[in-house]
Amino acid sequence: MKIRVYVSLKPGVLDPQGRAVHHALDGLGFEGVEDVRIGRFIELDMADGTTDEALESMCEKLLANTVIEDYRIEKVER
Amino acid sequence: MKIRVYVSLKPGVLDPQGRAVHHALDGLGFEGVEDVRIGRFIELDMADGTTDEALESMCEKLLANTVIEDYRIEKVER
Repeated sequence: MKIRVYVSLKPGVLDPQGRAVHHALDGLGFEGVEDVRIGRFIELDMADGTTDEALESMCEKLLANTVIEDYRIEKVER
Repeated sequence: MKIRVYVSLKPGVLDPQGRAVHHALDGLGFEGVEDVRIGRFIELDMADGTTDEALESMCEKLLANTVIEDYRIEKVER
């Protein structure tokens, strides 16, 4: 089964990468950009029957830094 | 309006970051992990009325490296 985990900075946490992209878009002449934030996603091919608990544990232990990041687990239908 | 751009490596392009995460998950004892690939997403707050052409141009010029990466633009409903 295919799983996607989306990891994003918690609201309020400074996002220097997002600011840099915002600045670069302004510099390239794009108008109307109000805010930019960057996150990442992890696409996992897992054996069928992997439990939700295992997925949560993977996020808590490795995939996200839960001090400053939120994560969301999505199962991709095929 | 809120836009999300998902950027992922094209199929076949080596993903060392994904391999490292795969290896780390194995090392932590998680079973059933068959493949891991990492991508990023960019969350943009844009002025209403930003055209699709402007968004595509932003992706082509800055947000994605189209030699090795694919991108997908998603408009987030509120």
